[in-house]
Parts: sequence; structure tokens; C-alpha cells
Amino acid sequence: MDTPLDRLTEQFRRLPGIGIKTARKLAYYMVQQPEESVNAFIGAIRDAKSQMHFCSVCFNLSSTDPCPICSDPRRDHSIICVVETPQDVLAIERSGDYHGLYHVLHGALSPLDGVGVDDLRIKELLQRLQDTEVKEVILATDPDVEGEATALYLARLLKTAGIRVTRIARGLPMGGDIEYADEATLAGAVANRQEM
Amino acid sequence: MDTPLDRLTEQFRRLPGIGIKTARKLAYYMVQQPEESVNAFIGAIRDAKSQMHFCSVCFNLSSTDPCPICSDPRRDHSIICVVETPQDVLAIERSGDYHGLYHVLHGALSPLDGVGVDDLRIKELLQRLQDTEVKEVILATDPDVEGEATALYLARLLKTAGIRVTRIARGLPMGGDIEYADEATLAGAVANRQEM
Repeated sequence: MDTPLDRLTEQFRRLPGIGIKTARKLAYYMVQQPEESVNAFIGAIRDAKSQMHFCSVCFNLSSTDPCPICSDPRRDHSIICVVETPQDVLAIERSGDYHGLYHVLHGALSPLDGVGVDDLRIKELLQRLQDTEVKEVILATDPDVEGEATALYLARLLKTAGIRVTRIARGLPMGGDIEYADEATLAGAVANRQEM
Repeated sequence: MDTPLDRLTEQFRRLPGIGIKTARKLAYYMVQQPEESVNAFIGAIRDAKSQMHFCSVCFNLSSTDPCPICSDPRRDHSIICVVETPQDVLAIERSGDYHGLYHVLHGALSPLDGVGVDDLRIKELLQRLQDTEVKEVILATDPDVEGEATALYLARLLKTAGIRVTRIARGLPMGGDIEYADEATLAGAVANRQEM
């Protein structure tokens, strides 16, 4: 029995982090919502899909081009923070302390998944660095295997261009627990200890 | 800054069980999907919303009327299992052991939430019982305050009509742990003990 409801469940199940039970709950919920709510939901998807594009400078998601960050004269245009995804930009923006620009790679190097140098926005990053205003590149890829490999690759590439290249710090997260920290994190936290 | 992406995030956040972080992840994921995938998702919502209706007999969600269960001559039309939601029908169907019919109340009595007798499909249930073929009504509302109150109300109402009224058993769930069972469940399990 393959009903329209089953097909909607299947569509929800394809979303990241949505298992079969949640997908079912969402599908049943959706069809029992009033017409206006369903249309509002569909409209929001359509609007976001049609209006959000990648900024031609930093490749972050934006409804304007260049994006509000790239076109903000109050931001520090001498620093570029390199991240893997637009969500990472949002996360760093929410932390509130960074006032430079961004560059979204749209992934990390991962030979096993077939993601190579040409699949990321690396060429475009190098082009941006032609602008002599840029003094520092912060590599804020994820602290996992792919993110570390990407950071390493970029660090070597960019240093030859004579730009200051930094990597976001690794260490114990706020509220963390030394007893339960994994070895790599703890080793890094000790190695990167700072004067008080 | 209220972008189309923020508005889509807000729409996802209104779905049951979706918090702000998941909503954000889903919104970012959606706008970065290819046009075809987004259209398939929207199409599935539209199809489900336009084609799924409530069965005029049991008020379960169905793309046909009466629904496949109500119109199946191989099912036992002498038993009606009363549940709160269409999802409950799905859950009992998946358990595979029940072969009677259903009646979906679309909620449970909850004076605090303003849900009274007239807000549920109780009148329609009584009408179905005019059919003398019905011999038993199984009350399968949730074992919580509202579900119990609803079951109690229906039991009194239906018994006067001279129909056998049963309530689904309460007890320890399969794989449960006596040590960690709550008092009400454990008391019920002991009270409803059965001969071996």
C-alpha cells in the first residue's frame, strides 16, 4: 500500500537527521494541518529556494549579492575566515566576536568520498587573496579528519603566498569535563596551553 | 536580518519535535538541494494534502472513501478499536494482530485544553454502533490522563447501549525493567496479572 502519505513520509525521511518515526510523525502532522499552514510552509520553501543564492565573493548563502557581510564596510576586510558550510558562518556569527569576512569552501577534502581540490571553492579563495588588503586567513574547517586535511592543504598553499595563516584553536569546550575528554582533545589542550 | 532562509527555518521549527537547531539544519539543507529534489518534496506535500482525506466511516486518513480497512470484507466488522489519532491506527496495524475496524476520535477529552465531547468523533462512533453487527468496542486511547478520562467516558456511554466494551491492557512493555518501571505501571501490571 503506497499512499500519498507514504510518499510524503519517504520525502521527510530523506532530510538529514530525520528517521522513519519522525518522518511519519511529520507527514501525518502536515496533512492534518489547515490548508493555509501547508501553503505557508510550501511558500517558505519556494521563497528560500528561489531567493537564496551563493554570494559571488564568499559563497555564503544570501538573498543579496554580494552578501551583507561582504558588502559591510564596517567589517574587517583584511581577515578571511575559511569554513566548510554556510551553517558554520552562522555559528561563528552567533558567537559574536568575529568581525572579518568569510569564505565558504562547500565541503572538505575527502578522497574517499571523491571530494578533491576542484570540488571546493579553493580557486576562488586564491583569487580573493590577489587583493592585497587581505592580511590573515583563519582556517576554521571542522576538527575532524577531512577538516584537518583541508586546513593542512590550505595552510601549505597559502603560506607560499606570504599570507598569515592561522587555525582555530582546539581544546576543551566550555563546560567540558577533563575526565571524559577524548585523548586527542586533551592532548591538544595540553599542547596548546596558554600563560595566565 | 530576516531572510527567506530565516523564514523557512521558522516554518520548520513549527513542526512537532523540531527544535531551532534541527530547523536551521533542515532549512540550510533544503535550499542547497537541487531544484528537482525541492520540487519532489513540495509535490509530495501537495499530493498528500490534496489526496488524503478522512474516511467518512472511521475518520482515519485515507486516499479512498471508505478507507481500505473499512471496505475490506476480510476484516472483522464486529469489532471497533477506538483510537485518538490516525498514527495510532498505523501503530496497531503494524503490530499485525488486530483484524477488526477502527474509529479515530481525533483527540482525547481535555477540559483544560478546551477539548470537549463535541470536539471528538464520538457522535459518529455512536452512529456506527446503530449497526447491530458491532459486538465489541476496544478502547485504545493513550494510557495518560486525557486518554483514561476519554476511555472512562466512552465506557459508561457505550455500556448503556449494551455493547461489550474493553480497554487495551496496561502493564510492563516488552523489554521493560521492573526496577525502573513507574509506580502506576507496576501497580497496574500486578493488578492485571494473568494465570500461566
